[in-house]
Amino acid sequence: MIRFIKNNKEFVEYFDVLKKRAEGINKDIIKIVNKIIYDIKHYGDRALREYTKKFDKIEPKQFRISQDEIKKQANKVSSEVFEALNLAAKRIKQFHTHQIEKTWEYKEEGITLGQLVRPLKRVGVYVPGGKASYPSSVLMNVIPAQVAGVKEIALCVPTPNGEINPALMAAIQIVGVNEVYRIGGAQAIGALAYGTESIHKVDKIVGPGNIYVATAKKMVFGIVDIDMIAGPSEILIIADNSAKLEIVAADMLSQAEHDEFASAIVITTSEKLAKEIKTELQKQLSFLSRKKIAEASLKNYGAVILVKTIKEAIEIANTIAPEHLEIITEEPKKLLPYIENAGAIFLGQWTPEPIGDYLAGPNHTLPTGGTARFFSPLGVYHFLKRTSIIKFNKNSFKCFAPFVQILSEIEGLQAHGNTIKIRLKEYNNV
Amino acid sequence: MIRFIKNNKEFVEYFDVLKKRAEGINKDIIKIVNKIIYDIKHYGDRALREYTKKFDKIEPKQFRISQDEIKKQANKVSSEVFEALNLAAKRIKQFHTHQIEKTWEYKEEGITLGQLVRPLKRVGVYVPGGKASYPSSVLMNVIPAQVAGVKEIALCVPTPNGEINPALMAAIQIVGVNEVYRIGGAQAIGALAYGTESIHKVDKIVGPGNIYVATAKKMVFGIVDIDMIAGPSEILIIADNSAKLEIVAADMLSQAEHDEFASAIVITTSEKLAKEIKTELQKQLSFLSRKKIAEASLKNYGAVILVKTIKEAIEIANTIAPEHLEIITEEPKKLLPYIENAGAIFLGQWTPEPIGDYLAGPNHTLPTGGTARFFSPLGVYHFLKRTSIIKFNKNSFKCFAPFVQILSEIEGLQAHGNTIKIRLKEYNNV
Repeated sequence: MIRFIKNNKEFVEYFDVLKKRAEGINKDIIKIVNKIIYDIKHYGDRALREYTKKFDKIEPKQFRISQDEIKKQANKVSSEVFEALNLAAKRIKQFHTHQIEKTWEYKEEGITLGQLVRPLKRVGVYVPGGKASYPSSVLMNVIPAQVAGVKEIALCVPTPNGEINPALMAAIQIVGVNEVYRIGGAQAIGALAYGTESIHKVDKIVGPGNIYVATAKKMVFGIVDIDMIAGPSEILIIADNSAKLEIVAADMLSQAEHDEFASAIVITTSEKLAKEIKTELQKQLSFLSRKKIAEASLKNYGAVILVKTIKEAIEIANTIAPEHLEIITEEPKKLLPYIENAGAIFLGQWTPEPIGDYLAGPNHTLPTGGTARFFSPLGVYHFLKRTSIIKFNKNSFKCFAPFVQILSEIEGLQAHGNTIKIRLKEYNNV
Repeated sequence: MIRFIKNNKEFVEYFDVLKKRAEGINKDIIKIVNKIIYDIKHYGDRALREYTKKFDKIEPKQFRISQDEIKKQANKVSSEVFEALNLAAKRIKQFHTHQIEKTWEYKEEGITLGQLVRPLKRVGVYVPGGKASYPSSVLMNVIPAQVAGVKEIALCVPTPNGEINPALMAAIQIVGVNEVYRIGGAQAIGALAYGTESIHKVDKIVGPGNIYVATAKKMVFGIVDIDMIAGPSEILIIADNSAKLEIVAADMLSQAEHDEFASAIVITTSEKLAKEIKTELQKQLSFLSRKKIAEASLKNYGAVILVKTIKEAIEIANTIAPEHLEIITEEPKKLLPYIENAGAIFLGQWTPEPIGDYLAGPNHTLPTGGTARFFSPLGVYHFLKRTSIIKFNKNSFKCFAPFVQILSEIEGLQAHGNTIKIRLKEYNNV
């Protein structure tokens, strides 16, 4: 039910499986999504209405969910859920405040140089509907934008068969977003990117979604900015002899239950752990409501990797570049300098990955499928834009003019040189 | 030869022209590029050799350009060009050093949270070959990566008919990149993204290029990261009565000479300037070696926009979100707080845009075609990745455990809750 890997050859084969898993976007999906985006761009609300009828089986009078409706739904949620969401929101906000960047400038003789750092004006947040509709996604995607200073946030969430998730509305109420639309899928991404009669276009789209949403986001990239291209989720646990079998198995299953493409991996120096994990996983599996999903995930993409040294474990982790990396060893923090690629690192046995999913503070939107090599967790930086500032005065201009002329000449850009020549004439006149 | 815009209706029409101009990627190009990327991915060097033969008319023994060859070519360049390039490199480095971000962490009772900020491991820099092959591109793309701490930089430059640009090699020598390949086009982007027998794959690809290169970069986005999707270049000048006619015209032409899709715009409150600019442009045009290109650019995408107030000028500038924004008014710095969207801002008449192209310090790789709404100038931040750090101890875990349980329950993720349950059992045992 789960792969057992003892040597490099087996790992190379497994790594190929993981790589193929990450390449989710295929031609058929591209064709479908292309058509949807085209229709939204050209027919606006009309197309949006048709696709919403087709995919969500609803024909809403208006796409926007009213404040009253949000309130009514949120009221269905218990006070303890509200309390937990409020706590999470507070902690997420606190962490992300550390990511704020400031405008800066410096001066040289006759020269001012600098960088304006400012929030994006308008952002679209996509939140999945139906079964994988999570209030924590609302907090994790909206709060960094708010901390950055984004003024306009448009949130889209599909409501299949008209069903609205009350906990989601509670989260929306907590963060205070009031522009909420009952639309989803590639059509929602198209509407956010190009705008329709009822939805103004945005500058950037963030948020998780299925393969259609991910494909649509990639397609509109350039028309708007997007956060990242997210694939299926994964956890990698580095465990030594000190790690508790039950804990490692439970953490693997918390990833495996997400969906069949999720991947749960343990790399261990403990032969005992490696030998016993399968039985423990089976034992814990039997009680899970999402047993079938978790079982399929373990079978297709899970792995137990036995290594000789922790150094070897880290090398493999760096190659996989996991979204979530748990380090359950004697002195986990000592290993940090050797970890090159991971979305988030959970140190020690008292830091289960779900604590990071909900309320530790850091974002749970993380690079997946090996993209931690180059992508970062969703953060305030995703909602800021920079503008360079350059100011030369008469004398500093004069001082650097000859060098600009030399360089424009070697690049064959005569009109570039003329901007200098004409100013030198002006310099001598005044 | 250049559009004259006096009212909103005329502006709306013109803005549509600009928007269409930015949508360069079309189906035919996608098809061609798709095939090239597929071939490189599946056939590696063999495909790379074939495409290089087809497009660049060369069959190199090896793709890598040797250190000797770089040196030999660079030696053809005059000492004054070397001096100018060295000065530019120094200033670019100094500016970008201000963009360095640091790892941070903070503690609460029993909790450590933080963010590792580290350089990407391996980056690919694309530099166009042939006519639009600029040594300044080498400096502007390589230096921020080096300042970020990127260890491996692979630079690709096509050498059509085997021709190597000596000034380019001088710039390469100055920044000290020694992994240089004579490949270009979509095939170079494919090789950098997927790797071939002779070129290791990278984590991110940056650098300018034609529409095939831009399309290829968009296609491999997700497999690797990319800097941005660059379109044709533009300048927008806000000028009042104090602006000199000759200077405004020269600066517009310095943009127009780049290519036929470049766009040069002046927005002015001065009726006199608006009336006289056409004649002045024609006068200066007649002396340019790239006259035909500049003329076509002005005709198709240039504009003179007459407005009543500077406030109005700024509103239009914010709508266009230009790559380069020159402000030639009495007190340019006072307008800064009102500018929302621009790649780089050049303040006052002594700051011609070309000074920023070469040596002011800020990057000349800037968001084009209105994407300054959400993209930033190329910077050190493009070469950094972040990883979140989370560590809870036994007691802080216990304290937050109930909230994680509530939230995993409301999201229907039972195995998430189990990671807490099993640890609470362990907590009570120890």
